[in-house]
Amino acid sequence: MSLEKVSSNKAFDGELIKYKFKSEALGGLYANFNLFLPANASKGKVPLLTYLSGLTCTEDNAAQKGGFLGPAAKEGIAILFPDTSPRGAGIEGEDADWDFGTGAGFYVNATNPKYAKHYNMLAHVTVELPQTIEAAGLPIDLTRQSIFGHSMGGHGALTMYLQSLRSGVKQYRSCSAFAPIANPTKCPWGQKAFSGYLQGGVEEAKDQYDATEIISKMGKEPVHILVDYGTADNFYKQGQLLPENFLQAARGVGYDEMQVRVRSQDGYDHSYYFISTFGADHVHFHANFLKA
Amino acid sequence: MSLEKVSSNKAFDGELIKYKFKSEALGGLYANFNLFLPANASKGKVPLLTYLSGLTCTEDNAAQKGGFLGPAAKEGIAILFPDTSPRGAGIEGEDADWDFGTGAGFYVNATNPKYAKHYNMLAHVTVELPQTIEAAGLPIDLTRQSIFGHSMGGHGALTMYLQSLRSGVKQYRSCSAFAPIANPTKCPWGQKAFSGYLQGGVEEAKDQYDATEIISKMGKEPVHILVDYGTADNFYKQGQLLPENFLQAARGVGYDEMQVRVRSQDGYDHSYYFISTFGADHVHFHANFLKA
Repeated sequence: MSLEKVSSNKAFDGELIKYKFKSEALGGLYANFNLFLPANASKGKVPLLTYLSGLTCTEDNAAQKGGFLGPAAKEGIAILFPDTSPRGAGIEGEDADWDFGTGAGFYVNATNPKYAKHYNMLAHVTVELPQTIEAAGLPIDLTRQSIFGHSMGGHGALTMYLQSLRSGVKQYRSCSAFAPIANPTKCPWGQKAFSGYLQGGVEEAKDQYDATEIISKMGKEPVHILVDYGTADNFYKQGQLLPENFLQAARGVGYDEMQVRVRSQDGYDHSYYFISTFGADHVHFHANFLKA
Repeated sequence: MSLEKVSSNKAFDGELIKYKFKSEALGGLYANFNLFLPANASKGKVPLLTYLSGLTCTEDNAAQKGGFLGPAAKEGIAILFPDTSPRGAGIEGEDADWDFGTGAGFYVNATNPKYAKHYNMLAHVTVELPQTIEAAGLPIDLTRQSIFGHSMGGHGALTMYLQSLRSGVKQYRSCSAFAPIANPTKCPWGQKAFSGYLQGGVEEAKDQYDATEIISKMGKEPVHILVDYGTADNFYKQGQLLPENFLQAARGVGYDEMQVRVRSQDGYDHSYYFISTFGADHVHFHANFLKA
Protein backbone atom coordinates (compact mmCIF):
# COMPACT_ATOMS: atom_id res chain seq x y z
CA MET A 1 0.00 0.00 0.00
CA SER A 2 1.61 3.25 -1.04
CA LEU A 3 2.35 5.86 1.57
CA GLU A 4 1.55 9.52 1.17
CA LYS A 5 3.65 12.01 3.13
CA VAL A 6 1.27 14.46 4.81
CA SER A 7 3.78 16.62 6.65
CA SER A 8 7.29 16.66 8.02
CA ASN A 9 8.86 18.54 10.92
CA LYS A 10 12.51 18.57 11.83
CA ALA A 11 12.92 17.74 15.52
CA PHE A 12 16.02 16.99 17.59
CA ASP A 13 18.13 16.79 14.43
CA GLY A 14 15.81 14.04 13.16
CA GLU A 15 12.46 14.15 11.37
CA LEU A 16 8.87 13.62 12.51
CA ILE A 17 6.92 12.55 9.43
CA LYS A 18 3.16 12.11 9.17
CA TYR A 19 2.04 9.57 6.60
CA LYS A 20 -1.35 8.40 5.41
CA PHE A 21 -2.36 5.31 3.49
CA LYS A 22 -5.40 3.24 2.64
CA SER A 23 -5.50 0.55 5.31
CA GLU A 24 -6.70 -2.93 4.41
CA ALA A 25 -6.73 -3.97 8.07
CA LEU A 26 -9.13 -1.09 8.75
CA GLY A 27 -11.43 -2.05 5.89
CA GLY A 28 -10.12 0.37 3.29
CA LEU A 29 -10.24 3.51 5.46
CA TYR A 30 -7.39 5.99 5.33
CA ALA A 31 -5.11 5.76 8.35
CA ASN A 32 -2.51 8.23 9.58
CA PHE A 33 0.63 7.57 11.54
CA ASN A 34 3.61 9.59 12.68
CA LEU A 35 7.13 8.24 12.41
CA PHE A 36 10.08 9.86 14.16
CA LEU A 37 13.36 9.08 12.43
CA PRO A 38 16.50 10.03 14.35
CA ALA A 39 19.39 11.63 12.45
CA ASN A 40 21.34 8.37 12.27
CA ALA A 41 18.56 6.80 10.18
CA SER A 42 20.15 8.54 7.19
CA LYS A 43 23.16 6.24 7.61
CA GLY A 44 21.43 2.90 8.14
CA LYS A 45 18.45 1.08 9.58
CA VAL A 46 17.42 1.93 13.14
CA PRO A 47 15.34 0.04 15.77
CA LEU A 48 11.60 0.75 16.05
CA LEU A 49 9.75 1.62 19.25
CA THR A 50 5.96 1.70 18.79
CA TYR A 51 3.88 3.98 21.04
CA LEU A 52 0.15 3.39 21.49
CA SER A 53 -1.95 6.31 22.74
CA GLY A 54 -4.97 6.27 25.00
CA LEU A 55 -8.69 6.99 24.67
CA THR A 56 -9.64 10.04 22.53
CA CYS A 57 -6.08 10.45 21.19
CA THR A 58 -4.74 10.41 17.65
CA GLU A 59 -1.24 9.83 16.31
CA ASP A 60 -0.35 13.41 17.29
CA ASN A 61 -0.83 13.74 21.06
CA ALA A 62 2.17 11.81 22.26
CA ALA A 63 4.40 12.99 19.42
CA GLN A 64 3.76 16.54 20.64
CA LYS A 65 3.47 16.06 24.40
CA GLY A 66 5.14 12.76 25.36
CA GLY A 67 8.69 14.07 25.59
CA PHE A 68 10.00 11.00 23.73
CA LEU A 69 11.66 12.55 20.68
CA GLY A 70 14.70 14.00 22.43
CA PRO A 71 15.60 10.75 24.22
CA ALA A 72 14.92 8.71 21.05
CA ALA A 73 17.18 11.04 19.05
CA LYS A 74 19.97 10.53 21.59
CA GLU A 75 19.53 6.75 21.52
CA GLY A 76 19.19 6.59 17.74
CA ILE A 77 15.79 4.89 17.85
CA ALA A 78 12.74 5.49 15.63
CA ILE A 79 9.31 5.89 17.21
CA LEU A 80 6.10 4.90 15.46
CA PHE A 81 2.91 6.66 16.62
CA PRO A 82 -0.16 4.93 15.15
CA ASP A 83 -3.64 6.38 15.47
CA THR A 84 -5.82 4.83 18.20
CA SER A 85 -8.76 3.77 16.07
CA PRO A 86 -10.34 3.71 12.60
CA ARG A 87 -11.64 7.06 11.38
CA GLY A 88 -14.80 7.50 9.37
CA ALA A 89 -16.13 3.95 9.34
CA GLY A 90 -19.61 5.43 9.50
CA ILE A 91 -20.95 2.77 11.85
CA GLU A 92 -24.10 3.83 13.65
CA GLY A 93 -23.30 5.12 17.13
CA GLU A 94 -19.52 5.01 16.81
CA ASP A 95 -19.22 8.73 17.63
CA ALA A 96 -21.69 8.70 20.53
CA ASP A 97 -19.27 7.97 23.40
CA TRP A 98 -15.71 9.06 24.09
CA ASP A 99 -14.79 5.64 25.47
CA PHE A 100 -16.15 3.49 22.65
CA GLY A 101 -15.93 3.65 18.86
CA THR A 102 -14.01 6.51 17.26
CA GLY A 103 -10.93 7.30 19.37
CA ALA A 104 -11.35 4.11 21.38
CA GLY A 105 -10.35 1.19 19.15
CA PHE A 106 -8.96 -0.72 22.15
CA TYR A 107 -6.34 -2.49 20.00
CA VAL A 108 -8.47 -5.55 19.23
CA ASN A 109 -9.52 -7.31 16.06
CA ALA A 110 -13.29 -7.00 16.28
CA THR A 111 -15.38 -10.15 15.87
CA ASN A 112 -18.80 -8.54 16.25
CA PRO A 113 -19.94 -8.28 12.60
CA LYS A 114 -20.96 -4.66 13.14
CA TYR A 115 -17.30 -3.68 13.76
CA ALA A 116 -15.32 -6.53 12.19
CA LYS A 117 -14.65 -4.83 8.87
CA HIS A 118 -13.01 -1.72 10.36
CA TYR A 119 -12.06 -2.13 14.02
CA ASN A 120 -8.89 -4.19 13.68
CA MET A 121 -6.25 -2.09 15.37
CA LEU A 122 -4.38 -5.21 16.53
CA ALA A 123 -3.68 -6.29 12.96
CA HIS A 124 -3.10 -2.68 11.90
CA VAL A 125 -0.42 -2.07 14.54
CA THR A 126 1.34 -5.42 14.71
CA VAL A 127 1.21 -6.56 11.06
CA GLU A 128 0.08 -3.90 8.61
CA LEU A 129 2.15 -0.94 9.81
CA PRO A 130 5.47 -2.83 9.94
CA GLN A 131 4.78 -4.32 6.49
CA THR A 132 3.83 -0.92 5.11
CA ILE A 133 6.98 0.68 6.54
CA GLU A 134 9.13 -2.08 5.10
CA ALA A 135 7.46 -1.93 1.69
CA ALA A 136 8.05 1.81 1.58
CA GLY A 137 11.77 1.25 2.09
CA LEU A 138 11.94 3.31 5.26
CA PRO A 139 15.20 2.81 7.21
CA ILE A 140 13.75 0.64 9.98
CA ASP A 141 15.21 -2.61 11.31
CA LEU A 142 12.11 -4.70 11.99
CA THR A 143 14.16 -7.34 13.80
CA ARG A 144 14.56 -4.76 16.57
CA GLN A 145 11.13 -3.72 17.84
CA SER A 146 9.73 -2.78 21.23
CA ILE A 147 6.37 -1.34 22.27
CA PHE A 148 4.92 1.00 24.87
CA GLY A 149 1.77 2.99 25.50
CA HIS A 150 -0.52 4.91 27.82
CA SER A 151 -3.82 3.87 29.40
CA MET A 152 -5.78 2.09 26.62
CA GLY A 153 -2.47 2.13 24.74
CA GLY A 154 -0.72 0.59 27.75
CA HIS A 155 -3.30 -2.21 27.52
CA GLY A 156 -2.52 -2.51 23.82
CA ALA A 157 1.24 -2.62 24.37
CA LEU A 158 1.07 -5.21 27.16
CA THR A 159 -1.33 -7.53 25.34
CA MET A 160 0.49 -7.29 21.99
CA TYR A 161 3.82 -7.98 23.71
CA LEU A 162 2.57 -10.92 25.75
CA GLN A 163 0.52 -12.43 22.89
CA SER A 164 3.53 -12.24 20.62
CA LEU A 165 5.79 -13.86 23.19
CA ARG A 166 3.29 -16.60 23.94
CA SER A 167 2.78 -17.43 20.28
CA GLY A 168 6.52 -17.68 19.66
CA VAL A 169 6.53 -14.79 17.16
CA LYS A 170 8.49 -12.60 19.62
CA GLN A 171 7.93 -9.41 17.66
CA TYR A 172 8.92 -7.12 20.55
CA ARG A 173 12.00 -7.22 22.76
CA SER A 174 10.53 -5.20 25.63
CA CYS A 175 7.30 -3.54 26.73
CA SER A 176 6.44 -0.60 28.96
CA ALA A 177 3.30 1.24 29.92
CA PHE A 178 2.12 4.41 31.61
CA ALA A 179 -1.04 3.89 33.66
CA PRO A 180 -2.19 0.90 31.58
CA ILE A 181 -5.66 -0.61 31.68
CA ALA A 182 -3.99 -3.71 33.03
CA ASN A 183 -6.94 -5.98 33.75
CA PRO A 184 -9.62 -4.76 31.31
CA THR A 185 -12.07 -7.63 31.73
CA LYS A 186 -12.47 -6.42 35.33
CA CYS A 187 -13.02 -2.69 34.65
CA PRO A 188 -15.85 -0.67 33.09
CA TRP A 189 -13.83 0.64 30.11
CA GLY A 190 -12.70 -2.83 29.11
CA GLN A 191 -16.06 -4.45 29.69
CA LYS A 192 -17.78 -1.85 27.52
CA ALA A 193 -15.22 -2.19 24.72
CA PHE A 194 -15.17 -5.98 24.66
CA SER A 195 -18.96 -6.24 24.88
CA GLY A 196 -19.16 -4.04 21.80
CA TYR A 197 -16.29 -5.22 19.61
CA LEU A 198 -16.30 -8.95 20.35
CA GLN A 199 -19.05 -11.36 19.49
CA GLY A 200 -18.25 -13.36 22.63
CA GLY A 201 -18.01 -10.24 24.77
CA VAL A 202 -15.90 -10.08 27.90
CA GLU A 203 -15.49 -13.86 28.02
CA GLU A 204 -13.90 -13.88 24.57
CA ALA A 205 -11.47 -11.17 25.66
CA LYS A 206 -9.94 -13.01 28.59
CA ASP A 207 -7.45 -15.15 26.75
CA GLN A 208 -6.40 -12.54 24.16
CA TYR A 209 -6.97 -9.04 25.43
CA ASP A 210 -6.36 -8.98 29.16
CA ALA A 211 -2.72 -8.58 30.21
CA THR A 212 -3.40 -9.84 33.73
CA GLU A 213 -5.16 -12.96 32.46
CA ILE A 214 -2.47 -13.65 29.87
CA ILE A 215 0.52 -13.27 32.17
CA SER A 216 -1.13 -15.42 34.85
CA LYS A 217 -0.79 -18.36 32.44
CA MET A 218 2.82 -17.66 31.49
CA GLY A 219 5.91 -17.74 33.73
CA LYS A 220 8.51 -19.61 31.72
CA GLU A 221 9.21 -17.20 28.89
CA PRO A 222 11.58 -14.38 30.03
CA VAL A 223 9.86 -10.96 29.87
CA HIS A 224 11.04 -7.34 30.08
CA ILE A 225 8.20 -5.15 31.33
CA LEU A 226 8.17 -1.72 33.00
CA VAL A 227 4.93 -0.11 34.26
CA ASP A 228 4.47 3.30 35.91
CA TYR A 229 1.24 4.63 37.36
CA GLY A 230 0.45 7.65 39.53
CA THR A 231 -1.26 7.54 42.88
CA ALA A 232 -3.24 10.73 42.07
CA ASP A 233 -4.62 9.26 38.83
CA ASN A 234 -8.40 9.44 39.06
CA PHE A 235 -8.87 6.52 36.69
CA TYR A 236 -6.56 4.46 38.89
CA LYS A 237 -8.64 5.43 41.91
CA GLN A 238 -11.84 4.52 40.05
CA GLY A 239 -10.55 1.02 39.37
CA GLN A 240 -10.12 1.36 35.61
CA LEU A 241 -6.41 0.49 35.62
CA LEU A 242 -5.87 -2.22 38.26
CA PRO A 243 -2.06 -2.42 38.00
CA GLU A 244 -1.88 -4.31 41.31
CA ASN A 245 -3.80 -7.18 39.71
CA PHE A 246 -1.24 -7.36 36.93
CA LEU A 247 1.67 -7.24 39.38
CA GLN A 248 0.13 -9.92 41.57
CA ALA A 249 -0.45 -12.19 38.57
CA ALA A 250 3.14 -11.69 37.39
CA ARG A 251 4.59 -12.46 40.81
CA GLY A 252 2.22 -15.40 41.13
CA VAL A 253 3.85 -17.13 38.18
CA GLY A 254 7.36 -16.29 39.32
CA TYR A 255 8.31 -13.11 37.43
CA ASP A 256 10.58 -11.07 39.68
CA GLU A 257 11.32 -7.35 39.89
CA MET A 258 13.90 -7.63 37.11
CA GLN A 259 11.38 -9.04 34.66
CA VAL A 260 8.19 -7.20 35.63
CA ARG A 261 8.68 -3.87 37.34
CA VAL A 262 5.53 -1.98 38.41
CA ARG A 263 6.21 1.39 39.99
CA SER A 264 3.72 3.46 41.95
CA GLN A 265 4.61 7.13 41.40
CA ASP A 266 3.49 9.30 44.28
CA GLY A 267 1.19 12.20 43.39
CA TYR A 268 1.18 11.81 39.61
CA ASP A 269 -2.05 11.82 37.59
CA HIS A 270 -3.18 10.43 34.22
CA SER A 271 -2.01 13.36 32.08
CA TYR A 272 0.83 13.94 29.66
CA TYR A 273 2.61 15.78 32.48
CA PHE A 274 2.96 12.36 34.11
CA ILE A 275 3.94 10.65 30.86
CA SER A 276 6.54 13.26 29.92
CA THR A 277 8.09 13.09 33.40
CA PHE A 278 8.96 9.42 32.90
CA GLY A 279 9.17 9.45 29.09
CA ALA A 280 12.96 9.55 28.88
CA ASP A 281 13.18 6.76 31.43
CA HIS A 282 10.96 4.51 29.30
CA VAL A 283 12.87 5.24 26.09
CA HIS A 284 16.15 4.38 27.82
CA PHE A 285 14.61 1.18 29.23
CA HIS A 286 13.74 0.05 25.69
CA ALA A 287 17.09 1.17 24.28
CA ASN A 288 18.80 -1.39 26.55
CA PHE A 289 17.06 -4.17 24.64
CA LEU A 290 16.76 -2.58 21.20
CA LYS A 291 20.48 -1.88 21.00
CA ALA A 292 21.65 -5.09 22.72
CA MET B 1 -6.33 40.27 43.71
CA SER B 2 -7.00 36.80 45.03
CA LEU B 3 -5.91 33.78 43.04
CA GLU B 4 -8.09 30.77 42.40
CA LYS B 5 -6.41 27.44 41.75
CA VAL B 6 -8.02 25.86 38.68
CA SER B 7 -5.95 22.69 38.46
CA SER B 8 -2.67 21.15 39.45
CA ASN B 9 -0.53 18.45 37.84
CA LYS B 10 2.59 16.93 39.28
CA ALA B 11 5.39 17.05 36.72
CA PHE B 12 9.09 16.29 37.01
CA ASP B 13 8.80 16.09 40.79
CA GLY B 14 7.43 19.66 40.80
CA GLU B 15 3.96 21.06 40.19
CA LEU B 16 2.28 22.75 37.23
CA ILE B 17 -0.54 24.88 38.63
CA LYS B 18 -3.19 26.74 36.67
CA TYR B 19 -4.55 29.83 38.37
CA LYS B 20 -7.22 32.32 37.45
CA PHE B 21 -7.89 35.79 38.79
CA LYS B 22 -9.77 38.96 37.92
CA SER B 23 -7.24 41.10 36.11
CA GLU B 24 -7.32 44.86 36.55
CA ALA B 25 -4.77 45.33 33.77
CA LEU B 26 -7.15 43.54 31.42
CA GLY B 27 -10.12 45.65 32.46
CA GLY B 28 -11.66 43.27 34.97
CA LEU B 29 -11.64 40.17 32.79
CA TYR B 30 -10.64 36.83 34.25
CA ALA B 31 -7.15 35.78 33.25
CA ASN B 32 -5.50 32.38 33.48
CA PHE B 33 -1.85 31.53 33.88
CA ASN B 34 0.18 28.41 34.48
CA LEU B 35 3.03 28.34 36.96
CA PHE B 36 5.55 25.53 37.13
CA LEU B 37 7.13 25.23 40.56
CA PRO B 38 10.15 22.91 40.80
CA ALA B 39 10.46 20.59 43.82
CA ASN B 40 12.98 22.87 45.54
CA ALA B 41 10.35 25.64 45.75
CA SER B 42 9.04 23.83 48.84
CA LYS B 43 12.30 24.76 50.59
CA GLY B 44 12.63 28.42 49.61
CA LYS B 45 12.07 31.00 46.87
CA VAL B 46 13.15 30.13 43.36
CA PRO B 47 13.95 32.30 40.28
CA LEU B 48 11.22 33.04 37.74
CA LEU B 49 11.46 32.51 33.99
CA THR B 50 8.47 33.94 32.09
CA TYR B 51 7.48 32.33 28.76
CA LEU B 52 5.32 34.23 26.26
CA SER B 53 3.47 32.19 23.63
CA GLY B 54 2.69 33.09 20.05
CA LEU B 55 -0.42 33.86 18.01
CA THR B 56 -3.52 31.72 18.74
CA CYS B 57 -1.95 30.16 21.85
CA THR B 58 -3.09 30.15 25.47
CA GLU B 59 -1.18 29.53 28.70
CA ASP B 60 -1.33 25.79 27.97
CA ASN B 61 0.43 25.17 24.65
CA ALA B 62 4.02 25.65 25.74
CA ALA B 63 3.46 24.11 29.18
CA GLN B 64 2.39 20.95 27.34
CA LYS B 65 4.60 20.99 24.26
CA GLY B 66 7.62 23.23 24.93
CA GLY B 67 9.77 20.68 26.70
CA PHE B 68 10.75 23.24 29.35
CA LEU B 69 9.53 21.59 32.55
CA GLY B 70 12.18 18.88 32.79
CA PRO B 71 15.11 21.27 32.33
CA ALA B 72 13.51 23.83 34.70
CA ALA B 73 13.05 21.10 37.33
CA LYS B 74 16.72 20.19 37.03
CA GLU B 75 17.80 23.82 37.32
CA GLY B 76 15.37 24.60 40.15
CA ILE B 77 13.67 27.42 38.26
CA ALA B 78 9.96 28.33 38.13
CA ILE B 79 8.31 29.03 34.77
CA LEU B 80 5.38 31.39 34.37
CA PHE B 81 3.15 30.83 31.33
CA PRO B 82 0.74 33.78 30.90
CA ASP B 83 -2.09 33.72 28.38
CA THR B 84 -1.42 35.61 25.12
CA SER B 85 -4.37 37.98 25.22
CA PRO B 86 -7.52 39.08 27.03
CA ARG B 87 -10.45 36.66 26.79
CA GLY B 88 -14.04 37.70 26.44
CA ALA B 89 -13.66 41.47 26.14
CA GLY B 90 -16.60 41.42 23.74
CA ILE B 91 -15.13 44.04 21.43
CA GLU B 92 -16.71 44.03 17.99
CA GLY B 93 -14.56 42.09 15.53
CA GLU B 94 -12.02 40.80 18.06
CA ASP B 95 -12.74 37.19 17.10
CA ALA B 96 -12.77 37.76 13.35
CA ASP B 97 -9.06 37.15 12.61
CA TRP B 98 -6.53 34.70 14.02
CA ASP B 99 -3.76 37.30 13.92
CA PHE B 100 -5.59 40.16 15.64
CA GLY B 101 -7.75 40.42 18.76
CA THR B 102 -8.41 37.29 20.79
CA GLY B 103 -5.29 35.13 20.83
CA ALA B 104 -3.18 37.97 19.41
CA GLY B 105 -2.69 40.56 22.14
CA PHE B 106 0.80 41.37 20.85
CA TYR B 107 2.06 42.28 24.35
CA VAL B 108 1.25 45.98 24.10
CA ASN B 109 -0.72 48.41 26.23
CA ALA B 110 -3.39 49.53 23.78
CA THR B 111 -3.93 53.27 23.25
CA ASN B 112 -6.74 53.04 20.70
CA PRO B 113 -9.81 53.70 22.88
CA LYS B 114 -11.58 50.70 21.39
CA TYR B 115 -8.99 48.36 22.93
CA ALA B 116 -7.44 50.42 25.74
CA LYS B 117 -9.57 49.03 28.55
CA HIS B 118 -8.72 45.39 27.93
CA TYR B 119 -5.71 44.91 25.64
CA ASN B 120 -2.88 45.62 28.06
CA MET B 121 -0.80 42.49 28.02
CA LEU B 122 2.40 44.49 28.62
CA ALA B 123 1.18 45.67 32.03
CA HIS B 124 -0.41 42.29 32.72
CA VAL B 125 2.84 40.37 32.14
CA THR B 126 5.46 42.76 33.50
CA VAL B 127 3.63 44.33 36.46
CA GLU B 128 0.37 42.64 37.40
CA LEU B 129 1.43 38.98 37.28
CA PRO B 130 4.59 39.45 39.41
CA GLN B 131 2.59 41.52 41.92
CA THR B 132 -0.18 38.95 42.01
CA ILE B 133 2.28 36.10 42.53
CA GLU B 134 4.00 38.01 45.32
CA ALA B 135 0.74 38.96 47.02
CA ALA B 136 -0.33 35.32 46.97
CA GLY B 137 2.82 34.35 48.86
CA LEU B 138 4.05 32.00 46.16
CA PRO B 139 7.72 30.95 46.61
CA ILE B 140 9.14 33.14 43.83
CA ASP B 141 12.22 35.37 44.08
CA LEU B 142 11.21 38.37 41.95
CA THR B 143 14.75 39.78 42.10
CA ARG B 144 15.70 36.89 39.79
CA GLN B 145 13.63 37.07 36.62
CA SER B 146 14.30 36.30 32.97
CA ILE B 147 11.99 36.10 29.96
CA PHE B 148 11.63 34.17 26.72
CA GLY B 149 9.01 33.46 24.10
CA HIS B 150 8.03 32.26 20.64
CA SER B 151 7.03 34.24 17.56
CA MET B 152 4.65 36.99 18.83
CA GLY B 153 5.88 35.96 22.30
CA GLY B 154 9.48 36.31 21.15
CA HIS B 155 8.57 39.88 20.16
CA GLY B 156 7.04 40.35 23.60
CA ALA B 157 10.08 38.95 25.41
CA LEU B 158 12.60 41.02 23.44
CA THR B 159 10.69 44.29 23.77
CA MET B 160 9.90 43.82 27.47
CA TYR B 161 13.53 42.96 28.18
CA LEU B 162 14.97 45.86 26.21
CA GLN B 163 12.40 48.38 27.46
CA SER B 164 13.10 47.37 31.03
CA LEU B 165 16.86 47.66 30.55
CA ARG B 166 16.57 51.04 28.83
CA SER B 167 14.33 52.45 31.55
CA GLY B 168 16.71 51.36 34.30
CA VAL B 169 14.14 49.03 35.90
CA LYS B 170 16.14 45.96 34.81
CA GLN B 171 13.40 43.51 35.62
CA TYR B 172 14.95 40.67 33.60
CA ARG B 173 18.49 39.29 33.69
CA SER B 174 18.39 37.62 30.28
CA CYS B 175 16.13 37.18 27.26
CA SER B 176 15.74 34.53 24.61
CA ALA B 177 13.39 33.90 21.73
CA PHE B 178 12.36 31.22 19.28
CA ALA B 179 11.52 32.61 15.84
CA PRO B 180 10.59 36.07 17.20
CA ILE B 181 8.77 38.75 15.26
CA ALA B 182 11.94 40.79 15.58
CA ASN B 183 11.11 43.87 13.56
CA PRO B 184 7.33 44.10 13.74
CA THR B 185 6.92 47.61 12.32
CA LYS B 186 8.32 46.18 9.07
CA CYS B 187 6.11 43.06 8.80
CA PRO B 188 2.41 42.48 8.07
CA TRP B 189 1.57 40.92 11.47
CA GLY B 190 3.09 43.80 13.40
CA GLN B 191 1.66 46.49 11.16
CA LYS B 192 -1.83 45.05 11.51
CA ALA B 193 -1.55 44.74 15.29
CA PHE B 194 -0.11 48.20 15.88
CA SER B 195 -2.57 49.86 13.49
CA GLY B 196 -5.38 48.34 15.51
CA TYR B 197 -4.19 48.60 19.11
CA LEU B 198 -2.34 51.91 19.00
CA GLN B 199 -3.90 55.30 18.37
CA GLY B 200 -0.71 56.40 16.65
CA GLY B 201 -0.45 53.16 14.70
CA VAL B 202 2.85 51.82 13.43
CA GLU B 203 4.63 55.11 14.06
CA GLU B 204 3.71 54.98 17.76
CA ALA B 205 5.07 51.43 17.97
CA LYS B 206 8.59 52.16 16.79
CA ASP B 207 10.07 53.41 20.03
CA GLN B 208 8.29 50.95 22.35
CA TYR B 209 7.32 47.80 20.54
CA ASP B 210 9.93 47.04 17.95
CA ALA B 211 12.99 45.13 19.22
CA THR B 212 15.09 46.08 16.19
CA GLU B 213 14.26 49.77 16.57
CA ILE B 214 14.89 49.74 20.31
CA ILE B 215 18.23 47.94 20.21
CA SER B 216 19.45 50.19 17.41
CA LYS B 217 19.38 53.09 19.89
CA MET B 218 21.12 51.20 22.71
CA GLY B 219 24.66 49.82 22.77
CA LYS B 220 26.01 50.81 26.16
CA GLU B 221 23.90 48.69 28.50
CA PRO B 222 25.19 45.06 28.64
CA VAL B 223 22.60 42.61 27.28
CA HIS B 224 22.20 38.81 27.35
CA ILE B 225 20.12 37.72 24.37
CA LEU B 226 19.79 34.37 22.57
CA VAL B 227 17.64 33.94 19.44
CA ASP B 228 17.00 30.79 17.40
CA TYR B 229 15.07 30.60 14.16
CA GLY B 230 14.64 27.84 11.58
CA THR B 231 15.46 28.15 7.91
CA ALA B 232 12.38 26.08 6.95
CA ASP B 233 10.03 28.38 8.89
CA ASN B 234 7.41 29.60 6.44
CA PHE B 235 6.78 32.78 8.44
CA TYR B 236 10.51 33.49 8.33
CA LYS B 237 10.47 33.00 4.58
CA GLN B 238 7.44 35.31 4.25
CA GLY B 239 9.27 38.12 6.03
CA GLN B 240 7.20 38.12 9.23
CA LEU B 241 10.16 37.52 11.56
CA LEU B 242 13.14 39.45 10.13
CA PRO B 243 15.75 38.20 12.63
CA GLU B 244 18.56 39.46 10.35
CA ASN B 245 17.34 43.03 10.87
CA PHE B 246 17.58 42.58 14.62
CA LEU B 247 21.04 41.03 14.38
CA GLN B 248 22.27 43.79 12.08
CA ALA B 249 20.94 46.51 14.42
CA ALA B 250 22.59 44.83 17.43
CA ARG B 251 25.94 44.53 15.67
CA GLY B 252 25.56 48.08 14.41
CA VAL B 253 25.63 49.46 17.94
CA GLY B 254 28.46 47.19 19.01
CA TYR B 255 26.82 44.18 20.66
CA ASP B 256 29.00 41.14 19.95
CA GLU B 257 28.24 37.43 19.73
CA MET B 258 28.53 37.07 23.52
CA GLN B 259 25.79 39.63 24.13
CA VAL B 260 23.44 39.03 21.22
CA ARG B 261 23.55 35.58 19.73
CA VAL B 262 21.24 34.89 16.76
CA ARG B 263 21.38 31.33 15.47
CA SER B 264 20.00 30.13 12.15
CA GLN B 265 18.92 26.50 12.62
CA ASP B 266 19.01 24.56 9.39
CA GLY B 267 15.75 22.88 8.35
CA TYR B 268 13.64 23.74 11.41
CA ASP B 269 10.16 25.22 11.06
CA HIS B 270 7.86 27.37 13.25
CA SER B 271 6.32 24.52 15.27
CA TYR B 272 6.67 23.23 18.81
CA TYR B 273 8.91 20.51 17.38
CA PHE B 274 11.41 23.30 16.74
CA ILE B 275 10.83 24.92 20.13
CA SER B 276 11.13 21.67 22.09
CA THR B 277 14.36 20.78 20.27
CA PHE B 278 16.06 23.89 21.66
CA GLY B 279 13.94 24.28 24.80
CA ALA B 280 16.46 22.77 27.22
CA ASP B 281 19.19 24.91 25.70
CA HIS B 282 17.21 28.09 26.36
CA VAL B 283 16.37 27.13 29.94
CA HIS B 284 20.05 26.44 30.63
CA PHE B 285 21.00 29.78 29.04
CA HIS B 286 18.71 31.61 31.46
CA ALA B 287 19.83 29.49 34.42
CA ASN B 288 23.35 30.88 33.99
CA PHE B 289 22.03 34.35 34.82
CA LEU B 290 19.17 33.47 37.18
CA LYS B 291 21.43 31.45 39.46
CA ALA B 292 24.51 33.70 39.21
